[in-house]
Amino acid sequence: MPSYTAPLRDMRFVYHELFDAGDITALPGCEDATADLVDPVLDEAARLAENELFPLNHSGDREGCRYQDGAVTTPAGFKAAYEQYAQGGWIGLACDPQYGGQGMPATLNVLLEEMACSANVSFATYIGLTRGAYRAIRAFASEALKDRYLPKMVSGEWSGTMCLTEPQCGTDLGLIRARAEPAENDGYRISGTKIFITAGEHDLTTNIIHLVLARLPGAPAGIKGISLFLVPKFLPTEDGEAGERNAVTCAGIEDKMGIKASATCVINLDGAMGWLVGEPHKGMRAMFTMMNEARLGVGIQGLGLGVSAYQAAVDYARERQQGRALGGTQYPEQPADPIMVHPDIRRMLLTMRAFTEGARALTTWVARQIDVRDHSEDPQARKEADDLVQLLTPLVKSYLSEVGHDAAQMAVQVYGGHGYIRDNGVEQYARDARIAMIYEGANGIQALDLVGRKLPAHTGRYLRRFFHPVQAWIDANTADQALQPFVLPLAKAFGRLQLATGQVAQAGLKDPNEAGAASSEYLKLFALVALAFLWARMAKIALAKREGDDSGFYDAKLMTARFFVERVLPQSGSLFATIMAGGNTMMSFPDEAF
Amino acid sequence: MPSYTAPLRDMRFVYHELFDAGDITALPGCEDATADLVDPVLDEAARLAENELFPLNHSGDREGCRYQDGAVTTPAGFKAAYEQYAQGGWIGLACDPQYGGQGMPATLNVLLEEMACSANVSFATYIGLTRGAYRAIRAFASEALKDRYLPKMVSGEWSGTMCLTEPQCGTDLGLIRARAEPAENDGYRISGTKIFITAGEHDLTTNIIHLVLARLPGAPAGIKGISLFLVPKFLPTEDGEAGERNAVTCAGIEDKMGIKASATCVINLDGAMGWLVGEPHKGMRAMFTMMNEARLGVGIQGLGLGVSAYQAAVDYARERQQGRALGGTQYPEQPADPIMVHPDIRRMLLTMRAFTEGARALTTWVARQIDVRDHSEDPQARKEADDLVQLLTPLVKSYLSEVGHDAAQMAVQVYGGHGYIRDNGVEQYARDARIAMIYEGANGIQALDLVGRKLPAHTGRYLRRFFHPVQAWIDANTADQALQPFVLPLAKAFGRLQLATGQVAQAGLKDPNEAGAASSEYLKLFALVALAFLWARMAKIALAKREGDDSGFYDAKLMTARFFVERVLPQSGSLFATIMAGGNTMMSFPDEAF
Repeated sequence: MPSYTAPLRDMRFVYHELFDAGDITALPGCEDATADLVDPVLDEAARLAENELFPLNHSGDREGCRYQDGAVTTPAGFKAAYEQYAQGGWIGLACDPQYGGQGMPATLNVLLEEMACSANVSFATYIGLTRGAYRAIRAFASEALKDRYLPKMVSGEWSGTMCLTEPQCGTDLGLIRARAEPAENDGYRISGTKIFITAGEHDLTTNIIHLVLARLPGAPAGIKGISLFLVPKFLPTEDGEAGERNAVTCAGIEDKMGIKASATCVINLDGAMGWLVGEPHKGMRAMFTMMNEARLGVGIQGLGLGVSAYQAAVDYARERQQGRALGGTQYPEQPADPIMVHPDIRRMLLTMRAFTEGARALTTWVARQIDVRDHSEDPQARKEADDLVQLLTPLVKSYLSEVGHDAAQMAVQVYGGHGYIRDNGVEQYARDARIAMIYEGANGIQALDLVGRKLPAHTGRYLRRFFHPVQAWIDANTADQALQPFVLPLAKAFGRLQLATGQVAQAGLKDPNEAGAASSEYLKLFALVALAFLWARMAKIALAKREGDDSGFYDAKLMTARFFVERVLPQSGSLFATIMAGGNTMMSFPDEAF
Repeated sequence: MPSYTAPLRDMRFVYHELFDAGDITALPGCEDATADLVDPVLDEAARLAENELFPLNHSGDREGCRYQDGAVTTPAGFKAAYEQYAQGGWIGLACDPQYGGQGMPATLNVLLEEMACSANVSFATYIGLTRGAYRAIRAFASEALKDRYLPKMVSGEWSGTMCLTEPQCGTDLGLIRARAEPAENDGYRISGTKIFITAGEHDLTTNIIHLVLARLPGAPAGIKGISLFLVPKFLPTEDGEAGERNAVTCAGIEDKMGIKASATCVINLDGAMGWLVGEPHKGMRAMFTMMNEARLGVGIQGLGLGVSAYQAAVDYARERQQGRALGGTQYPEQPADPIMVHPDIRRMLLTMRAFTEGARALTTWVARQIDVRDHSEDPQARKEADDLVQLLTPLVKSYLSEVGHDAAQMAVQVYGGHGYIRDNGVEQYARDARIAMIYEGANGIQALDLVGRKLPAHTGRYLRRFFHPVQAWIDANTADQALQPFVLPLAKAFGRLQLATGQVAQAGLKDPNEAGAASSEYLKLFALVALAFLWARMAKIALAKREGDDSGFYDAKLMTARFFVERVLPQSGSLFATIMAGGNTMMSFPDEAF
């Protein structure tokens, strides 16, 4: 069975060294987030992930969730682990102190999320949904609703969900049929069927707070007629505890490829009491607040699983003895050399490593912008930070879910036949990782979001938040000889991205299908450049700090950076060529000929 | 649930049009394989795959194999389907008439194999193993063994296995510990434990013929001391029926990620009677005869699953209505447009299509060479054909297993959240397809086989069997204006392959790790060029025949060819750049730093 050890050294590197930790403590409300506090929090979160969540990962997959008579039972151990997680204050770590949260930076929270996802992604979904619901309620609900619900959610006593999907609509929320009728207590009676509701029913909390998209009477057709409602499983009593049962029930759970310990529910609303969150017909706006949070979370699932997969593959490559090194026997006293001697095994390990360490830098970068957006007193800084979050969110969701899945598949490959056997654990990573490319907006939708919304937004303003610092960094470092192996490939890939951006924008203006046809490859090219930018910056730090470092950390960082630019970044060439080829071959193909 | 319809039109195209069917009927023993015979055989095989095998695919995954007290029960319906398959003479279709086979060409047989794998890859493994064992016995066993065993295997009354792997050795067969002691009746008593034995025990046949690798007393260490033995589950009686039980037992079956209806067995040999196949200590040679057959079969599994996945995705893309076309509503009378209108969906569908049709051309090409090798009276023609089979086998195994898996994953993506649900069937394709990249030599081993054995063999003779016809075809068609969109990209990719070949050969001579470091990308580049060559040839035929063709077949072929060269073939650029970057970054990384 694989093991998991939280990569604390690298986490501290991205937190304190790659991005200036002083920038965070300078933010109002984040003054306490010094290394003295942050490092022990990371240590404790690691202990929890390694010792409490990870041991339940494989058994959770084996056991799955059980459904009976409307109730869902999570696998053995989940409830106890959840209680420990909630009681430790981890759910509200980055939540507003006004509602009982600890007010820690998002930058710290994403590292915790990564650990939870590495250790047990099914478990992490229960936490992730609560956090997404928290954000939407906090941003859009009335003060009364906030006061009533948020403290219980922040403490983890109650959990949250997002109820969007219906049988006839997933991506296209304009097709939603669930209906809300005005009722007593400023509330509404909501009816409809929702499917694929993660954590829609379970035994971990005393109440579940559903955020439900539904239509008010007379609402306009399409997505402009959708409103968001808060629908608790149990209606709160006067004193704020879970009281009378609401007419929201779980009609069953899905039998899925993976994340089997995460309950994916069919939720029936039969005139359930709910309260409007935000304005009537403006539900999509509130939903996107929740969704963007969730999209980052899904990217982090990919990263987290990629890390576990990498560690499992490294362990196996060290232990498994098979064949001899191509250049001659390395361990003559053993019947065979460990498979780590083989270049193709090392290629896979380093690909996984370069992806995951680059991905961690990317999520941390985005989280740092979230902290600035949420805490800075400077409106311009807040706006700039938000722009970058907007731009990078589809990249994080889509690219990290893909490289996480790739890494999980590579771990299976390193394990060979043993990787295909359920009890050896790595095939679970591949199955668990698969969903991240789909939910919270399939990756194709993320790519469309990037080319269709984020690029043209404010005549390219979001884009400039990325292009300008990259160009500035290249300009500032282009004379540094030691950095040439990183600056030049970055500049080349960045040049391709700039040209591709022009192509996508121009061709897409004439024919939106052209932008759509290029979108998936364009997103990948963009993500590769983002990773190359971060790897170049990490290489610069490593170059400066490697002298006298006995741990080998900076040397390894530098070599991984080199592997990335030499063996991964060349993909930018093919992606560019494919983008420039245009979409004619796919759009002109007759439907009936498929 | 997905459906499956055998792609008979395209099969007839590759059989009769892409390669000259007259070349087959000109071979001694293949005179009867005219279109009059071949086409009805294809039709009947399609009927069997669609109506008998496919309906058991999902239920087989659900039910899996069951193990109790040494016996394995296949899922409901498998035994009846197997009997129908065997009684129809399908198992021995391409086997020697001397042993009851129908003597049909391998070229026809691979199309049947593809259909069986599309319909039910678990089922196909039982047939595939018998065919591999048949080949090794026929090529290396004594006349007495052949006469005793082959007729029952050809008829399907008995099945076969390959018993190579042991707990401590998979790839590295030099570590085999199973032992054979001389015994009565010119036989041997064989002892040891074998794992991952596909079809090692089941209820489909009255006997199971294991081909077992083991060491004779005093055998040299390593792979030069391994012999091959035929070990029947039941010892044949005088009159050739299954008699006394042999000391070979199944100790359990594996719980796997996929191909759950294919029994993967632990086989214990406790002094089981066996007979030598081929010469003492020369077991690897006989094993490779079997293995090469099996490797082609595994590539065909990838192709077969890719085809099913493509069809499932196309059906879903037609039915599922979600969102509107980017260029404006296409079906105003419906609540939403079918997702097939979206360029990113079409990109996935066409990628799957271009892969699978190209892969079918490739397997058919290799099978045609097998027919020449096995039937031609011209020794030079036989040698040339065998050279090409040797060269292309690792490509077929490795590349087709990858594109099959990719296609299955794309089908899951097209289905979105519904693709992650077990009852919707496509996630099974992804799980079933995953093993093909691993077994019969993991894909990394195939890549090493290509660069380490096949390239240098006979100072590049194998390579020339591919390079010369490709160059000749480019030269012959370079002046054809209508073919320019295909010839030029082919020539460019071929140029990259030639340069990469030089690099791999030269760098590998100095340091074998350099060849190893490039091997996986080199194999992919080679496979892309092979597909580009076949797509260019298919485009040429389509150009010549499209006029007056009302079916749209040739137009679609031409457009798919165009998609391949514009949107898939550019990968050759990145692969080339990665190969040329060399292996230093991965070989210099310290083991302890992983």
